[in-house]
Amino acid sequence: MSPQNLDSLTQAVQERFADTPEPRLKEIMVALVKHLHAFARDVRLTEAEWFQGIEYLTAAGQKCTATRQEFILLSDVLGLSMLTVAMNNDKPPGCTEATVFGPFYVPDAPHYENGDDVANGASGQPCLVRGTVRGLGGEAIARATIEVWQADDEGHYDVQKEDLPHAQARGVLYSRADGSFDFKTIVSEAYPIPTDGPVGALLQATRRSPWRPAHLHFMLKAEGYETLITHVFRKECVYMQADPVFGVRESLIADWKLLPDGATLLEFDFVLNPTR
Amino acid sequence: MSPQNLDSLTQAVQERFADTPEPRLKEIMVALVKHLHAFARDVRLTEAEWFQGIEYLTAAGQKCTATRQEFILLSDVLGLSMLTVAMNNDKPPGCTEATVFGPFYVPDAPHYENGDDVANGASGQPCLVRGTVRGLGGEAIARATIEVWQADDEGHYDVQKEDLPHAQARGVLYSRADGSFDFKTIVSEAYPIPTDGPVGALLQATRRSPWRPAHLHFMLKAEGYETLITHVFRKECVYMQADPVFGVRESLIADWKLLPDGATLLEFDFVLNPTR
Ligand SMILES: [Fe+2]
Ligand SMILES: [Fe+2]
Repeated sequence: MSPQNLDSLTQAVQERFADTPEPRLKEIMVALVKHLHAFARDVRLTEAEWFQGIEYLTAAGQKCTATRQEFILLSDVLGLSMLTVAMNNDKPPGCTEATVFGPFYVPDAPHYENGDDVANGASGQPCLVRGTVRGLGGEAIARATIEVWQADDEGHYDVQKEDLPHAQARGVLYSRADGSFDFKTIVSEAYPIPTDGPVGALLQATRRSPWRPAHLHFMLKAEGYETLITHVFRKECVYMQADPVFGVRESLIADWKLLPDGATLLEFDFVLNPTR
Repeated sequence: MSPQNLDSLTQAVQERFADTPEPRLKEIMVALVKHLHAFARDVRLTEAEWFQGIEYLTAAGQKCTATRQEFILLSDVLGLSMLTVAMNNDKPPGCTEATVFGPFYVPDAPHYENGDDVANGASGQPCLVRGTVRGLGGEAIARATIEVWQADDEGHYDVQKEDLPHAQARGVLYSRADGSFDFKTIVSEAYPIPTDGPVGALLQATRRSPWRPAHLHFMLKAEGYETLITHVFRKECVYMQADPVFGVRESLIADWKLLPDGATLLEFDFVLNPTR
């Protein structure tokens, strides 16, 4: 088939979306066909490679369960997740930057009071986390919802463990009237993203490291402000230069300070962007 | 994030594939990242749309079974299958054109002799199929493997029916010494591609028809010739103009002729491309 005929095939596929009632869906499908076909033509995809792609996507889909999301992981390692986050969270200077959501968030985490230990039995070195939640104008934000989640020191989130009777190292609390919060947890450690599925096979075949730099996940919500989904990264972590999901932002790197009593302290202040 | 920063994110992801030992895998991954990011930027994909995409791929993967391939179907309706076939089957004029494989091929079909009825109980009007298999120089090809498969007159392939004890309307036979073949089967009728999964939902949301024009699948193999995977399409079918998988080629459209005895006859001659 000549290049002209390949062009007209692509055009015929795009035209088939002409009657789509929802304009945004139409726009997305026409663009998807454009870029998908451009990819296949750019690499001159063979039929065997096409079938490998089909098998890869099938295996990824079949790996997904209620607590395992292989397609988010795939999007993460291809940088698509971070690209989407970056495009949609262009906040003014001074606001805390957003980063990837990751595949390990689960809703309905247990609620805690300030000062509580959210580790709830997760293994790791004790750590105190404290900080404030403010708006871009410096105003304290009271009763902001602060949701945190992290892996234990063996690199596992609670949802990756079978038959755990309750959530661990995952919880929701609220900022005080002055915007402050504090809670106990465990020290964040580096962990490999799950390598027992198709994404692991891809990292292996391309000699990429699965190790995420040590981090603590946060999701902050407050009325009148944009929701912030981010991590705080642990400065001394050796994996900071090659995060497999491209989530590291300079402004999100913080010190986990060793205290005289042997505990560790992370202080981090968040600044939320007011909604327009 | 500024456009420059989005560019550098894309570049960082591509650079992460630098150590891939297999050059072709590296080439494909770097191009995939380029086009995937270009798509997301082109439409300014929102986070909610990104998540819809994740959920869509997950549902497609979970719909796949040993006899149901939703990702092939998705590739088919996006024209990617036909594009791949077209790029890889650029045969000289005079050769029979290739078209999409489709999701309903299964290996190990039963073997038949010339003259046998491959319908094997599938419902439909009786039909005789005959033709020849020749090389591009006009030479008869003896003992070419001719594999055929088709839907019954209710629009179902045997693999879509539960608990069928044996194959129906699917079989393998061989051309005679003079390149000729003939077999009995049922008349090909239009059928909708499966609409009970994510691909059906996409067709519905974009107001696209799921009806494939009536066709009979062929796969021809012979030593010294390129394998040919194609369909023969039934001329009078009303769905010819909007094949949902973009498989129709003018040269593959043929008459199913009504005979005086009430049976139907399809005559079609195949021309295979010699391997270099
Ligand atoms: Fe994480
Ligand atoms: Fe078919």
